[in-house]
Amino acid sequence: MRLRNKPRAGAVIGDHPNIVIPEPENHKGKWNEVFGNQHPIHIEVGMGKGQFVLGMAKANPDINYIGIELYDSVLLSALERILDEEEEVPNLRLLNVNAQDMSDFFGKGDISRVYLNFSDPWPKNRHAKRRLTHENFLDLYEQILPEEAEIHFKTDNRGLFEYSLVSMSQYGLILQDVSLDLHANEPEGNVMTEYEEKFSKKGQPIYRLEAKYPKRSS
Amino acid sequence: MRLRNKPRAGAVIGDHPNIVIPEPENHKGKWNEVFGNQHPIHIEVGMGKGQFVLGMAKANPDINYIGIELYDSVLLSALERILDEEEEVPNLRLLNVNAQDMSDFFGKGDISRVYLNFSDPWPKNRHAKRRLTHENFLDLYEQILPEEAEIHFKTDNRGLFEYSLVSMSQYGLILQDVSLDLHANEPEGNVMTEYEEKFSKKGQPIYRLEAKYPKRSS
Repeated sequence: MRLRNKPRAGAVIGDHPNIVIPEPENHKGKWNEVFGNQHPIHIEVGMGKGQFVLGMAKANPDINYIGIELYDSVLLSALERILDEEEEVPNLRLLNVNAQDMSDFFGKGDISRVYLNFSDPWPKNRHAKRRLTHENFLDLYEQILPEEAEIHFKTDNRGLFEYSLVSMSQYGLILQDVSLDLHANEPEGNVMTEYEEKFSKKGQPIYRLEAKYPKRSS
Repeated sequence: MRLRNKPRAGAVIGDHPNIVIPEPENHKGKWNEVFGNQHPIHIEVGMGKGQFVLGMAKANPDINYIGIELYDSVLLSALERILDEEEEVPNLRLLNVNAQDMSDFFGKGDISRVYLNFSDPWPKNRHAKRRLTHENFLDLYEQILPEEAEIHFKTDNRGLFEYSLVSMSQYGLILQDVSLDLHANEPEGNVMTEYEEKFSKKGQPIYRLEAKYPKRSS
């Protein structure tokens, strides 16, 4: 995505610490306090402009959501979208952080599910480590999830999906559900991302999977 | 595939016991004697008219192949194709048997790899047990393969491929390679089946995977 220069991003983000949590490491192990309830917390890594995570939060009030986005100019769009809502969205927070630092601010089991949507495919082999389904990231997610938690992943990028199936399988994740053309049999309650709307309108297949971490203790 | 009535199938098959092995249970545990060498043996379950298994046998003289087909009218086409070859194909045999009985004539490790190509999708849920990637079949293959052996699977059927990814993953197989559009980047040495030629000409994507059985002993 082209990143427009938005010098005001930092200032606007700083004005809304109730939505964009400023020092996430302070909440490690006690994220339930941030939301004021014991509901499970799902995160979207690389939420972009936030259409998916906002739609999920509104559709599922008994689940808390955290959208993570590295680029402040992009996160600003998500923040503005939330501020444009007629009512507050009490079960949604944003983090303007690098996902690689995730274990600094989430403890084991703080998060119940990870969503990855239309992640950057990093098509060159030498950039494989940057893909959010690389084994290093799968390991990072496992550090913050309870046992047997799920990753839900959607993309229009064939190469990234092929890579991810193999990467997840070799890591030990177990596939629960796979769709190779999501909109051919769109499941009830599917919340679309911006990219998904755009690419599925063009008739491109959207790939989707749900995978579960294995039980490590025996 | 439509099965034409070929009453002569049985007779022609019976005339070629050197190609279509008549009593396979007699060779359990000693298939190398049939081929007269110690080369690994790969099988195709549901070979249809045999284009793939014949092509593979010709391309890989150091591997022995066995094509399995339930319907004698279909197996006859494969046999005729082999008989039409200018030279003998010493590393290829056929079996006119039900794959479900496989462990009656193959012992553990007799077979080194299983190929499944364009298997019947059996789309109705109540027929799931008939799919050649159902857990019951995955278990059957494991009984005749050594540890960490591979299944190679191709199909044009999206539903069957989605099902197979999940079924294999839940069985414990580990994905080694996945292609969601084989002919977009056709690998060197890809031997096409009859169906593959037909469907890929129509521009339909061909799905392919390689999956490995886990090491069971530790």
